[in-house]
Amino acid sequence: MAYNLLKGKKGIIFGALNEQSIAWKVAQRCHAEGAEIVLTNSPLALRMGELNNLAKECDAPVIGADVTSNDDIENLYAKTKEHFGGGVDFILHSIGMSVNVRKNIPYYQNNYEFTHKGFDISALSLHRVLQIALKQDMINEWGSVVALTYIAAQRVFPDYNDMADNKAVLESIARNFGYYYGTQKKVRINTVSQSPTRTTAGSGVKGFDGFINYAEKMSPLGNANADQCADYVVTLFSDLTKMVTMQNLFHDGGFSFTGVTGAVIEQMEK
Amino acid sequence: MAYNLLKGKKGIIFGALNEQSIAWKVAQRCHAEGAEIVLTNSPLALRMGELNNLAKECDAPVIGADVTSNDDIENLYAKTKEHFGGGVDFILHSIGMSVNVRKNIPYYQNNYEFTHKGFDISALSLHRVLQIALKQDMINEWGSVVALTYIAAQRVFPDYNDMADNKAVLESIARNFGYYYGTQKKVRINTVSQSPTRTTAGSGVKGFDGFINYAEKMSPLGNANADQCADYVVTLFSDLTKMVTMQNLFHDGGFSFTGVTGAVIEQMEK
Amino acid sequence: MAYNLLKGKKGIIFGALNEQSIAWKVAQRCHAEGAEIVLTNSPLALRMGELNNLAKECDAPVIGADVTSNDDIENLYAKTKEHFGGGVDFILHSIGMSVNVRKNIPYYQNNYEFTHKGFDISALSLHRVLQIALKQDMINEWGSVVALTYIAAQRVFPDYNDMADNKAVLESIARNFGYYYGTQKKVRINTVSQSPTRTTAGSGVKGFDGFINYAEKMSPLGNANADQCADYVVTLFSDLTKMVTMQNLFHDGGFSFTGVTGAVIEQMEK
Amino acid sequence: MAYNLLKGKKGIIFGALNEQSIAWKVAQRCHAEGAEIVLTNSPLALRMGELNNLAKECDAPVIGADVTSNDDIENLYAKTKEHFGGGVDFILHSIGMSVNVRKNIPYYQNNYEFTHKGFDISALSLHRVLQIALKQDMINEWGSVVALTYIAAQRVFPDYNDMADNKAVLESIARNFGYYYGTQKKVRINTVSQSPTRTTAGSGVKGFDGFINYAEKMSPLGNANADQCADYVVTLFSDLTKMVTMQNLFHDGGFSFTGVTGAVIEQMEK
Repeated sequence: MAYNLLKGKKGIIFGALNEQSIAWKVAQRCHAEGAEIVLTNSPLALRMGELNNLAKECDAPVIGADVTSNDDIENLYAKTKEHFGGGVDFILHSIGMSVNVRKNIPYYQNNYEFTHKGFDISALSLHRVLQIALKQDMINEWGSVVALTYIAAQRVFPDYNDMADNKAVLESIARNFGYYYGTQKKVRINTVSQSPTRTTAGSGVKGFDGFINYAEKMSPLGNANADQCADYVVTLFSDLTKMVTMQNLFHDGGFSFTGVTGAVIEQMEK
Repeated sequence: MAYNLLKGKKGIIFGALNEQSIAWKVAQRCHAEGAEIVLTNSPLALRMGELNNLAKECDAPVIGADVTSNDDIENLYAKTKEHFGGGVDFILHSIGMSVNVRKNIPYYQNNYEFTHKGFDISALSLHRVLQIALKQDMINEWGSVVALTYIAAQRVFPDYNDMADNKAVLESIARNFGYYYGTQKKVRINTVSQSPTRTTAGSGVKGFDGFINYAEKMSPLGNANADQCADYVVTLFSDLTKMVTMQNLFHDGGFSFTGVTGAVIEQMEK
Repeated sequence: MAYNLLKGKKGIIFGALNEQSIAWKVAQRCHAEGAEIVLTNSPLALRMGELNNLAKECDAPVIGADVTSNDDIENLYAKTKEHFGGGVDFILHSIGMSVNVRKNIPYYQNNYEFTHKGFDISALSLHRVLQIALKQDMINEWGSVVALTYIAAQRVFPDYNDMADNKAVLESIARNFGYYYGTQKKVRINTVSQSPTRTTAGSGVKGFDGFINYAEKMSPLGNANADQCADYVVTLFSDLTKMVTMQNLFHDGGFSFTGVTGAVIEQMEK
Repeated sequence: MAYNLLKGKKGIIFGALNEQSIAWKVAQRCHAEGAEIVLTNSPLALRMGELNNLAKECDAPVIGADVTSNDDIENLYAKTKEHFGGGVDFILHSIGMSVNVRKNIPYYQNNYEFTHKGFDISALSLHRVLQIALKQDMINEWGSVVALTYIAAQRVFPDYNDMADNKAVLESIARNFGYYYGTQKKVRINTVSQSPTRTTAGSGVKGFDGFINYAEKMSPLGNANADQCADYVVTLFSDLTKMVTMQNLFHDGGFSFTGVTGAVIEQMEK
């Protein structure tokens, strides 16, 4: 079901990899709601090749960009402006990577070169995307930026490793840049803190299965899935949420404010 | 602009008093988005007579109910079920009153009879509305309940008096009932924490003008108004936010996560 | 081990019932740290008779007071002033009771007469204790007030029932009164949010055993016990924490910021 | 006034620069409370030369260490172990530096090389200090680690620049490492979020004067000073707070939970 919620709007979607990706679902929903979009991902991700399917489906150009490179982001924006004949109304940031996670290095034995790399890609990339957007006046007034995050930024989930720290700083960047972009250009910036989701990125986390089951049992409505997340992000890109900014918004079936459930207590008594 | 976001949905709006009321705006927006509604308020508020104008505009019946009376709520639900031929999909709770505030009694000299009365009307009323709804199976699966609140539940705003405590418990009730209604019927319950707004209720608070100016200067996007609040509530009643529950959602132009602004510092230096 | 941390200080301890009580331990520790104290509890609790043992041990008078009665609190303060020849430096509020819990009425079927009663005893009592203290100038400058609370004020623990709402408003009262007592008399007011503890009050909560085990597994340092809580409260009464006010302080072995632990995940996989 | 609260305890103090430093005051207070300490700072800070005065006063060795170097930290720990004939019971981390701040580069024009450098020194240094301590088993069971932070980690204070993000990740590291160090060695890790303080570091922030006045007016007890902070840190190093871990503890006269004060509203009306 579609409502034309984003009719006439233009946006950039960072981070769609394959059909499991939340960014993929967001792109589809934005398209269905009447938006025009540009898809972008890292050169490596583009070589995996699936993004072209989405591009066709959404009638969207694909423009590669390494989010750790100022030049790449500048080029992405220049080409996007050319394509749309102007700026954009929304941006989705769905980017995260930790070398320490990939290499199964426990948090208390982290390699700091890897930490810096993960920080650059997963967190600082949002600052870069925003800073260059502000410089190039890339986002239209009352535009909306959403970055995906996870509750490990607030509480410890051991296997989430240094991605917890990356998400903490990502949320801080959203908040701080939200102040500047808000006062200067009325652009709002929020993070959506999503239930654990079976994406390619999520599955890389050790013990993911045990954890996703726990989260399911701990959420009064169950875990939110990627499609539902896309629905929610669409509302945040729409004109109905213009005054929501600098927030971290949990989209998790109630997990974040549930201390324990009957289902978990039952399991504890086994 | 309307999107048919609530097409086919039915709801109850508590607390519309006059054109300034947020509930009034929510009713109009729900109607514009295709919902059918029932309006309700206390017998006293009904005697003031303006609600009939809204009722005509929205083609909605008005059913009086004192929210401190189980009987009245039961009657409201019975008549609403009759009117719609079934349950509802959403409820707005926009109710608050403090006798201590009305009588200008400072927080540290509160009269506890008045405190109990304010607690009953402003906070416990949400529990009552939900408990009787659950008993009468009044809210359809995946229904949505929103209650309006204020950030005084988290931080001290001196003139807000015992309404701060009422809002704290209101948010707690939303959270706790959200667990039960979620696990039993998939109904979600959230509070929206709105900027200070020039309504009849808001204006009753001492020093309101000085305060609303401060909030304006402290919000990167400025204070959110009642129309914008109605827009936001509509998204929470729609099917696009099904997995958001037990949350307190700030709708305040960024006030809640702003520690200070340039504008305020400037004023401090005068 | 004692440090004379409270040498020369005087205080009132509300809520010691028997040796399991946190308030009992706090009284002992205050005495050991050099403070003089007055013990108080409800007439009903006094008739149970154990408090006299503590009174002897701490060389403290026992003055009965029903915390729902202004007269009783006024009388308590008058007699305390007489006993000490002046005001006090600290107060412990360790009071909670829910009729809905006692009668095993689920949260979604609460009896509102019982709710009002629990609210009066568990939450409003703190306001009363503070309001009358301010009126009678009962707390010396730079005095310290601590009220015990539980994390159900922030997240849902189903069996905690309407005590969750009572604790939410208790914390709000501490915060709001902290503002007034701070600006007027430099008195600080904080709440300590303690691990589930095997006290007479705690044991009354349904499913307490399953729950306390869960909390143990979810706390990196394990659950904090009543003795450790008393140690912590002593620091908050001491002159070393003069600028800590309006805070809710978790004393829980890390439970509050732990999303999940290895031990819990393991149990989930059984 | 001293209580022998830390009698027999040994600790390392990072970050004392001169008499204004909070770390300086903490060192003095630890010494007064009976602890033996080792002082450390960067080679550059040591060359400024004042630290030797403190060293004499506290009868403490000074061991230089660059917190961005694993080797330096390893060397520091090896020498400390030799000096004490064993591990330590507490560590203070009071370290922060942002090149973007120093060079007056606004947040929305940050240089990312500088950002990485600030992140390394201000935040990752805590991880390094803890990781190497765990590896070398440097902290005794039930030891305590405190890192100083600022509320800009939660809310935006524009002039605080990228130090806000650094503090957000610092707090996340305290929380995450607190889980591991807690489960493995019963070591607790907390952050203390201090009022703005006139230290050499604090004074470097643009608009600091206007801001410190605002904070004073917004704190029911006024701003906490460095001496009071040292008092508070001492309680966190003592055996009276063994079960407090993974917390961010505001030491700020109530600023953190005050939405507005009469004094600020008055100023707004000028």
